[in-house]
Amino acid sequence: MSRTAVVVGAGLSGSLMSVYLARRGFAVRVLERRGDPRTPGVREEGRSINLGLSQRGIVALREVGLLDRLKPATVPMRGRVVHAPDGTLRFQPYGTEEDQVLHSVLRHDLNVALIDEAERLGVDFRWGHRVTAVDRTVPSVIAGEEHAADLVVGADGAFSAVRAQLARGLRMDLHQEYLEWGYRELLIPLDDGGKPRTDPYALHVWPGDDGLIVAHPNADGTLTATIFLPFEGPAGFAGLDTPERVRAFFADRFPDVPALIPDVVEQFLDHPPASLVTIRASPWHTATDDGRGTVLLGDAAHAVYPFYGQGMNAAFEDCSVLDRCLAAHPDDLPAALAAFERFRRPHTDVLAELSKRNFVELRDRVRSPLFLARRKADLLLHRWFPRAWVPLYTLVSHTTTPYGEALARVRRQDRLLGGVTAALTGAVLAGLAHRSRAGRKVS
Amino acid sequence: MSRTAVVVGAGLSGSLMSVYLARRGFAVRVLERRGDPRTPGVREEGRSINLGLSQRGIVALREVGLLDRLKPATVPMRGRVVHAPDGTLRFQPYGTEEDQVLHSVLRHDLNVALIDEAERLGVDFRWGHRVTAVDRTVPSVIAGEEHAADLVVGADGAFSAVRAQLARGLRMDLHQEYLEWGYRELLIPLDDGGKPRTDPYALHVWPGDDGLIVAHPNADGTLTATIFLPFEGPAGFAGLDTPERVRAFFADRFPDVPALIPDVVEQFLDHPPASLVTIRASPWHTATDDGRGTVLLGDAAHAVYPFYGQGMNAAFEDCSVLDRCLAAHPDDLPAALAAFERFRRPHTDVLAELSKRNFVELRDRVRSPLFLARRKADLLLHRWFPRAWVPLYTLVSHTTTPYGEALARVRRQDRLLGGVTAALTGAVLAGLAHRSRAGRKVS
Repeated sequence: MSRTAVVVGAGLSGSLMSVYLARRGFAVRVLERRGDPRTPGVREEGRSINLGLSQRGIVALREVGLLDRLKPATVPMRGRVVHAPDGTLRFQPYGTEEDQVLHSVLRHDLNVALIDEAERLGVDFRWGHRVTAVDRTVPSVIAGEEHAADLVVGADGAFSAVRAQLARGLRMDLHQEYLEWGYRELLIPLDDGGKPRTDPYALHVWPGDDGLIVAHPNADGTLTATIFLPFEGPAGFAGLDTPERVRAFFADRFPDVPALIPDVVEQFLDHPPASLVTIRASPWHTATDDGRGTVLLGDAAHAVYPFYGQGMNAAFEDCSVLDRCLAAHPDDLPAALAAFERFRRPHTDVLAELSKRNFVELRDRVRSPLFLARRKADLLLHRWFPRAWVPLYTLVSHTTTPYGEALARVRRQDRLLGGVTAALTGAVLAGLAHRSRAGRKVS
Repeated sequence: MSRTAVVVGAGLSGSLMSVYLARRGFAVRVLERRGDPRTPGVREEGRSINLGLSQRGIVALREVGLLDRLKPATVPMRGRVVHAPDGTLRFQPYGTEEDQVLHSVLRHDLNVALIDEAERLGVDFRWGHRVTAVDRTVPSVIAGEEHAADLVVGADGAFSAVRAQLARGLRMDLHQEYLEWGYRELLIPLDDGGKPRTDPYALHVWPGDDGLIVAHPNADGTLTATIFLPFEGPAGFAGLDTPERVRAFFADRFPDVPALIPDVVEQFLDHPPASLVTIRASPWHTATDDGRGTVLLGDAAHAVYPFYGQGMNAAFEDCSVLDRCLAAHPDDLPAALAAFERFRRPHTDVLAELSKRNFVELRDRVRSPLFLARRKADLLLHRWFPRAWVPLYTLVSHTTTPYGEALARVRRQDRLLGGVTAALTGAVLAGLAHRSRAGRKVS
C-alpha cells in the first residue's frame, strides 16, 4: 500500500515537494488557503512577481523533469547592470563560465507549471482550505475536515500555520527579525515602439546606502523593479507620501528611473510597502512512534532576506534534499526527516546570515573602497584560478555547494587573500626600506 | 478626569503595576485569565512556588509601601550552602554588607499581598477574563467585552496574548529560545520532630554539569528544591522514568538528597518537567496619535532563564522604571512609553545574556579551576576594596545598578584583573629569571 502525504501550501515549495513525493510513490493531497492560481482573477498578494532562478533551483527542476518545459518562459540574465546616480551603466558578467547565468521567471508561471505537473502525477489539490490545527501525534491537519497522513509537510510560508501549530507544546526555538527597510514593486513597461527600455538580458541594480533598486526582466520585454527603502524617515516610505516628494526623491537619488518608468510616482504611491523578515525555527520535524512524521520546509522553516536571491532556490533545494533523505531511508520516515533536518538546517542558518550580510554589502558597497578592492582581487583571482578560487556569490548562485561549505571555503580563501595582502604589503615595505637604506647611502 | 489603564495579567508584575498606576491616579482595571488566587482551590500551575527577592524587587516593594508588611512572610537567606557529592557542605555568604541578603518568599503570598493592596487602592480585578484580541489603535482589549483605556499594559507572562496580538501587523522582532534542560520542584519537608532538615536561612545549591538543584527556604521551615536536568538522555527526565532509575540516579549524583526528601522518587515521578525559555521582543510599546498607548512588561517583554534569580526582580524593576517614566512625562503617555522602552530594553537584553551565561557557569563551575581561581580573586578584591571592586553577582542581586552598567563595570574590572594577573605572572617570571641568573652565578 502506498504511503500518504498531506502538503500544506500550494506555493512554489509545496507544489514542487508534491511532485517529488508523487514521483516517490506517495499518494499526495495539497491543502491551499488561497484559490487555484490558474483561475482568472485569483491574485497572489504580498509576494514578489518574478524571481531569479539560480543553480540550486535549476538542479531541482531538472530532477523532476521540468526544466526544459519551463525554459521558454524564463529570461537568461548574463550579468548585472549597475546604474550609477550620474546615469552611467556598468556591466558585470556573472561568471567566467557560459552556464553561469541566472534565469528570471514569473512566480505565477512557475507555480502553475509545478501544479500542472503535480496534477499530471495524480496529486489532489484542495483550494480554499485554511489550516486551523495540526495534531503531530497522528499526524493530521484540520482544514475544515481532518486530513491524516503518514507524512505532513508544512510548506506554507514565513508565517506558517503548521509551524505555529507544531510550536504548541513543543519546545520550538524561534527567531523572527524584521528589516528596518521594506520594498515595493514597480513595472518598467515597454517603450512606445514596443521595445524594452533597457537591457532585457541582465539583472539591473541601483545600489545605494539609503535606498536600492533591483530589476528582473520578464519574457515580454518589460522588467519588474523592486525598490528597497527604510520604512521611516523623510527619505523612507513614511516620508515619501506625496507626488511632489516622490518625484523629487527619484530626481535626486535615481535620476534615470523616471525615463524607464514614466508613471513611477503613481506606481510608487499605489500600494503600501511590504516588509522583509528573517525566520529561523528549530526543530523542523516531529515523528510518531509508529513511523509517521511532520516536517517544515522552505520559508516555513527558514525565511531569509531576498538580498542573495536565494529564497526560492533554497526552498527548491530543500525539496531535493528531503527527497534524497526519503530515498536513503525508504522504510523509515522518522529517520529520513531527522537526516533532512540534521543535514539541512546548518546550511540554511548560514544562508540567513549571508542574506543579512549581503543587504549590508549592497547598501554600503558604494562607499567602501576596501570592499571594492577586495571584490576586484576576488574576481581577478577567480579569472586566474577558475577552479581553485571561487567567489562566495558564485558558490551560492552558480553551484550546489552546501551554503555552510561555501562559506567555510570562502573563509579559507579570505585568510589566504589576507596572507597574500600581508605578504605583498611586507614586500612593498621591504622594498621601501631597501630604497630608504639605499637613499641614506647616497646622502 | 483621571486617566484609565487596563492591565492584562494579575500575576506578580501585573498586580504590582496596577498598584503603581493606582497610586499615580489612574483608574485601573486588571483582566486575569485565571481565577482569584485568594479563592481556596485555585491552583497556580506551571510556575515556581517560591522566589528569591533581591535588591531590585525590594526597592520596588518599598516604593509602594509594601515591604514592611511583607517582611514577616519572607525568609532571609544570608548566603549559599553548596552541597558537594561527598555530602560536605560549604557556606558562601552573599556579601560583605549586612544588607546583602536575599529574601525567599512564596509566590502565592506575594501575589495575594499585591492584589490586596491594589484593591485597597480601588483597582478593579476581573477574574476568568481571557484576552482574545487587542486593538492597539484604540487601544482596547477584547476579553468577552471590549475594554478600552488610555494605557493598556501587557503583563501576561512569557506566552503573552497581548504580545501575540501586537505582533499582528506590527514588525515585531521576536527571539524565543528553549533550554535543553527542564525543571521539576520537590518539597524538603520538616523532619519527624517538626524541625527543618537543613539550614533554613540560606539558599542551597547542588552544582553539577549534568544536573543541578537549588533550594529556597519557606517560612514554615520546609524548603522548596528545584532540580534542573537535561530533557533527553538516560540521566535526563526522559530516561529517569522508573522508580529504580530515579533512586539509582539520586544515590549516585545527589546522595544527600534522599535523606532530605524521603519520598524523592514519588515526588520526582509525580508530574512532568517544566521548560525554560528566553524571550526577547521588540518593540514593547505602541502609541496612538491622540496620546494613548500599549506597553509590555515583565516576562511578556523579556522572559529570562532563572539562573540569576532575576525574573521577578527584573519585572518589579520594570514597574518601578515605567512609573518613573510616567512621572517624568505626566502629560505625554507616548513619550513616557518610548522613554521606558528606550531606557529599559538594553538592560533586560543584558540580563537575558547574563542569565544564559550563569546557567553555563552553574553547570560547569565544578570542573573549571580557572573559573574558581578568578572567582576567588574577585571575592578577595571585593573584600579589600568593597566600594571600588564589586563582583557581578553582587551588582545584579544587591544593587539597582542597571544590568547593562553592571556588566560594563565588571568588564572593566575583568580587564584590570587580567592586567593584574599578567603583571603578577610577569613579576613571578622575572623573579624566576633572576633566581635562574643568580643560580648560574653560584654554579
